This record gives sequence, structure tokens and C-alpha cells, in this order.
Amino acid sequence: MLKTRLNPQDTAPVAMDGVDGVSMRVLLGGDHGMKNFSMRHFVVEPGGHTPQHAHDYEHQVVVLAGSGEAEHDGETIAISAGDVLFVEPEKHHQFRNTGQEPMEFLCLVPRERAGGGEVPGS
Amino acid sequence: MLKTRLNPQDTAPVAMDGVDGVSMRVLLGGDHGMKNFSMRHFVVEPGGHTPQHAHDYEHQVVVLAGSGEAEHDGETIAISAGDVLFVEPEKHHQFRNTGQEPMEFLCLVPRERAGGGEVPGS
Repeated sequence: MLKTRLNPQDTAPVAMDGVDGVSMRVLLGGDHGMKNFSMRHFVVEPGGHTPQHAHDYEHQVVVLAGSGEAEHDGETIAISAGDVLFVEPEKHHQFRNTGQEPMEFLCLVPRERAGGGEVPGS
Repeated sequence: MLKTRLNPQDTAPVAMDGVDGVSMRVLLGGDHGMKNFSMRHFVVEPGGHTPQHAHDYEHQVVVLAGSGEAEHDGETIAISAGDVLFVEPEKHHQFRNTGQEPMEFLCLVPRERAGGGEVPGS
């Protein structure tokens, strides 16, 4: 059985336009033989944020630690550990850590885009 | 943005052969418009277990609380909060709570079987 552990120390910095203070790790993805969907672990440092962007695939998100806010299609909501979120395809979205400790979340994506082609970082 | 929270009180008992002391909730599934994969929250009471079975779709599992053991294709491993597991399609598997507190995990499945048709409980 393939087994690993959630560990924020095991994530690597994300270098991407619009990203600040974010690291990630693909827990279960293409490199592990995943065919349908992929699980990634993100850590956002206080003051950090993911890019404000949109794409043709969805996210399922579970906040594991910390707190902040999520912007989705022009709406901004407070988020904290224990929240489960769905980001719709094609909606602009961003996750921001407005708290004092690292904000951690799982983010799941399909392996393939609706129109074909691999989802980046999956 | 679709948002909900992890809450073991919101799960409902699973009535299925081979199941003891298990409740679950579909956090993000077909009823929420999911097309590719589905996220479920399981709570296994101390001494409880999921069925020992196999099927043609995979599981991605994240243990959120408690401890126990996972059997997969004849191998049994100890599991605890923070573990991430992959159950391969067609492998016999079972999750058992051998601890003193409820064991909680997320279990993700594709919405559709490889051969077509909907994955039950997705």
C-alpha cells in the first residue's frame, strides 16, 4: 500500500507569477500512478497568497491548519481549519493567509483538463 | 463558493454488510455537481471497521483523527492522523479502528467506474 504523511517540511517553494510565500507537494499524483485525480498539500506563510487566476478545471480544498480568506468569482470569505471548499472551473480565485501561523490546505484536481491535456502540478 | 465544514456529528450511519460502527457524509459529490471525483468524510468508532472488500475504483485516503490499521492486498499497516494512503483498484482492503477514540478519514473516489457506471456513495 502506498503510504506517506502530511508534513509541511516536505513541501517545496512554488515559483509562479502572482504567488508569494507558498510551498507545495504532490502527495498523490501522476508520478504515483494516479489516473483520475491528484492530491496536493499547500502551505501558505502569513501574508502569503496563491495566484489570482482561473482555469478550466476545478479544485476541492480542505483547510488543515491556520486561517485566511478565499476569493472566488469576486466573493471573499473567511476560511479556517476544518473548512471544505469547492472552486468551480473558470472562476477567478485566490487563497490568502491573513493569520499569524502557516495556513495549510489540501487541494485536489483532476489529472486531465476537460478539453484534454494534463492539469499542471498534478 | 460552495463551502462546508468537517464535522463528525454530520455523518450518517453506514448500513452495509461487513460494516461495524461506521458513519459517513459525502462532502463534495454528485449532489453538489462534482463531475470527476468525490470527497467523503468517514468516522469509525473504536472497534469498528469498514467492509473487507475490493472494487474497480481507487481510494485516496487522509487520516484526520485517531488511529487504527489498514489492510490492503493482504498487508496490514498501522495508520494514524496525518497519514495519506492510496488503495489501488481491485485490491481487497479494510480500515479498522484499533484505538480508543473515533478514527476519522477523508476518502476520495472517482465519480465513474473505469468500465462505466457511477461509483456508489460518490
